[in-house]
Amino acid sequence: MSDLRQQIEALGPAARDAARALAVSGTAEKNRLLLAIAAALESRSAEIIAANAVDLANGRAASLSAAMLDRLELNPKRIAAMALGVREVAALADPLDDADRVLKDWTRPNGLRLQKVRVPIGVIGIIYESRPNVTIDASVLCLKTGNAVILRGGKEAIHSNRALVDIVSAAAAGAGFPRAVVSLVPVTDRAAIPLLCGMDKYIDLLIPRGGRGLVETVVTHARMPVLKHYNGICHIYVHTDADFDMAGRIIINAKCQRPGVCNALETLLVDQAIAKKFLPPMVQSLRAHNVKVLGDAAASEALGEPLPVPEDWATEYLDLILAVRVVENLAATVDHIETYGSHHTDAIVTNSATAAREFLRRVDSSLVLWNASTRFNDGGEFGFGAEIGVSTDKLHARGPMALEELTSYKYIATGSGQVRQ
Amino acid sequence: MSDLRQQIEALGPAARDAARALAVSGTAEKNRLLLAIAAALESRSAEIIAANAVDLANGRAASLSAAMLDRLELNPKRIAAMALGVREVAALADPLDDADRVLKDWTRPNGLRLQKVRVPIGVIGIIYESRPNVTIDASVLCLKTGNAVILRGGKEAIHSNRALVDIVSAAAAGAGFPRAVVSLVPVTDRAAIPLLCGMDKYIDLLIPRGGRGLVETVVTHARMPVLKHYNGICHIYVHTDADFDMAGRIIINAKCQRPGVCNALETLLVDQAIAKKFLPPMVQSLRAHNVKVLGDAAASEALGEPLPVPEDWATEYLDLILAVRVVENLAATVDHIETYGSHHTDAIVTNSATAAREFLRRVDSSLVLWNASTRFNDGGEFGFGAEIGVSTDKLHARGPMALEELTSYKYIATGSGQVRQ
Repeated sequence: MSDLRQQIEALGPAARDAARALAVSGTAEKNRLLLAIAAALESRSAEIIAANAVDLANGRAASLSAAMLDRLELNPKRIAAMALGVREVAALADPLDDADRVLKDWTRPNGLRLQKVRVPIGVIGIIYESRPNVTIDASVLCLKTGNAVILRGGKEAIHSNRALVDIVSAAAAGAGFPRAVVSLVPVTDRAAIPLLCGMDKYIDLLIPRGGRGLVETVVTHARMPVLKHYNGICHIYVHTDADFDMAGRIIINAKCQRPGVCNALETLLVDQAIAKKFLPPMVQSLRAHNVKVLGDAAASEALGEPLPVPEDWATEYLDLILAVRVVENLAATVDHIETYGSHHTDAIVTNSATAAREFLRRVDSSLVLWNASTRFNDGGEFGFGAEIGVSTDKLHARGPMALEELTSYKYIATGSGQVRQ
Repeated sequence: MSDLRQQIEALGPAARDAARALAVSGTAEKNRLLLAIAAALESRSAEIIAANAVDLANGRAASLSAAMLDRLELNPKRIAAMALGVREVAALADPLDDADRVLKDWTRPNGLRLQKVRVPIGVIGIIYESRPNVTIDASVLCLKTGNAVILRGGKEAIHSNRALVDIVSAAAAGAGFPRAVVSLVPVTDRAAIPLLCGMDKYIDLLIPRGGRGLVETVVTHARMPVLKHYNGICHIYVHTDADFDMAGRIIINAKCQRPGVCNALETLLVDQAIAKKFLPPMVQSLRAHNVKVLGDAAASEALGEPLPVPEDWATEYLDLILAVRVVENLAATVDHIETYGSHHTDAIVTNSATAAREFLRRVDSSLVLWNASTRFNDGGEFGFGAEIGVSTDKLHARGPMALEELTSYKYIATGSGQVRQ
């Protein structure tokens, strides 16, 4: 245990020094580093695949599911996609470049000039589970924004991750940066996570990416800020003034286009005034898309058919399952969403601007939509180019977390000898 | 213990409901509430003074120091000052009003309009020590920005705090808001703090205001974001190209104008090239202002007199004591500040724009200054009108934490039936 602690704590000072070097580097230098990483992923792909083969063999020996093995696998096509992704991040605007970094600039009556300028956060710790592509995706977003990274990947992918981190570190050294701009927790011991959580002297922000258990562990132990990507209990409310065809298209898209993601629809709320008319064709359409429909007593009644009752209103199915509830009105809808939702993504379908404004104002979620699919809560769909996740936190970053959200700020004062009166 | 838990956890749902009511209230309504609080502080001042007399009597019986009793005392003049402060906050611009709340507004190629809009944070927990005026000051800043507050004040001020919170709650009820827009943890048991720290379902942000021990307890236990106001180990670096007179004025101001605050100077770093010329008159001037000067061997040598050696470089003296170190150059200065500083406030005095730019870029503190006193790291001096503290955190809010920093944001999407491809 004390060996483990030493191994992990040694990562801190090196990452801190690397962050200081990154913080004063320019956009061109950082982009050169990213392009060198992309090139090295391609030129060293045989190494990556060999390391990944060890993880896959261990995974098969440990009887990992076919889905897990698929997520673990790196092949030439996937490595090419990773390299392309890195080049895309290199091409994005740098929120820290001279044109964009000054957020405010004002002069006080005493002549003191104050500027609020963007700066990197510092050292970001990312704790994730199986997919090795996160190693590269998350690292390059942090590097682009001048942050050093300490990674803690899943034990299933340890050989792949070691190979990938070595590629990034070697590219960093080649570009004149410290190797420790990216480092990997070298052990897969679970005790590593609480140890990282205690390193607030060196890690400025922790981002856990994984299941609820992982996030809970991090939240319980972390002394530094944590950005959480909790689950999405996303709702669509079909208001009395909804265009039924539009509602149908939005609901099918939100539920079926990719049911396993956090911005997929989980609960459909239908206004009681239209439930009898709206629900029968809607349920038919959902079933035609292989969706299993659950519902409360009022939904069954409106449909004219008994539906299986959902166990609760706070389950994230992440599957072709939809819970339907008939609601009294807009106020009851807001209460339902605020009680059972996860403040992720919620939508209203209506032609009434008054009802829409009320819904958009009262529902406290990272994205609230009027007449559009919940699936739009995504950095790419926002035009952000890339994202490290969708934050369900309310502080620092909320919703799609892209480059700007990986920065902080400081104030700069320029004077001519001002002293305080 | 389980009674205590019940009493404290009961505050959560009520505060959450109150926050929902506040979040949809307008600027005029919130300001009416603030003005009603100011009026009630004046009309009910006899009650406040009677409650405060109990705290003062208990404090004297517990042999509190004269300084602590002074901080605890409320008298007509101090109550008038509190009421004036509330009226000043009411007069400040509301960052959530219609003119200011939309931070970004853009339309995607598919016609989906996206808006990033400011919203309140929700429920803010404030844990503080003796001064009862914090009860009002902190509450009104939170109310102005649409946030509900759960307060946990020091046990010495419990009777005063109860009277003050009752005044705010009654004013809230009179203005049509729930009483629980502000609530006070009703007990002074220390175990209340870890219980509050576990209420992440109801409290969105915790702000501990007090000594290091309190902040440590909160950081260790909190599951929600915490905004810390740690100590200020503030530095001034006198560069080779400094104007010595200006440096002297800035140093005397930063050290002596109010030595007990977080943005006061603690360590003076003098470039070795000028130390022999700069230090003797500077130390003379400091001593004329009753400052005790400590220094390293090089400082003693430059001065031509042995100085007491500081125990370390990371002590916040909060007193008329100054530690002096002679540094090799600007790079060594940055290393010193990054190693021993607290990322609070650091300044360079120089006529060299090149040296200043290097210092301002490399020093990672909430405020870095060129040719001005560290004492300017303050919401009032920034023109923010009011502040809840100076954050030493790097996420969400850094430096003076005023009204804008008490808000979060959400995204609003307005569509015409868009679905994701």
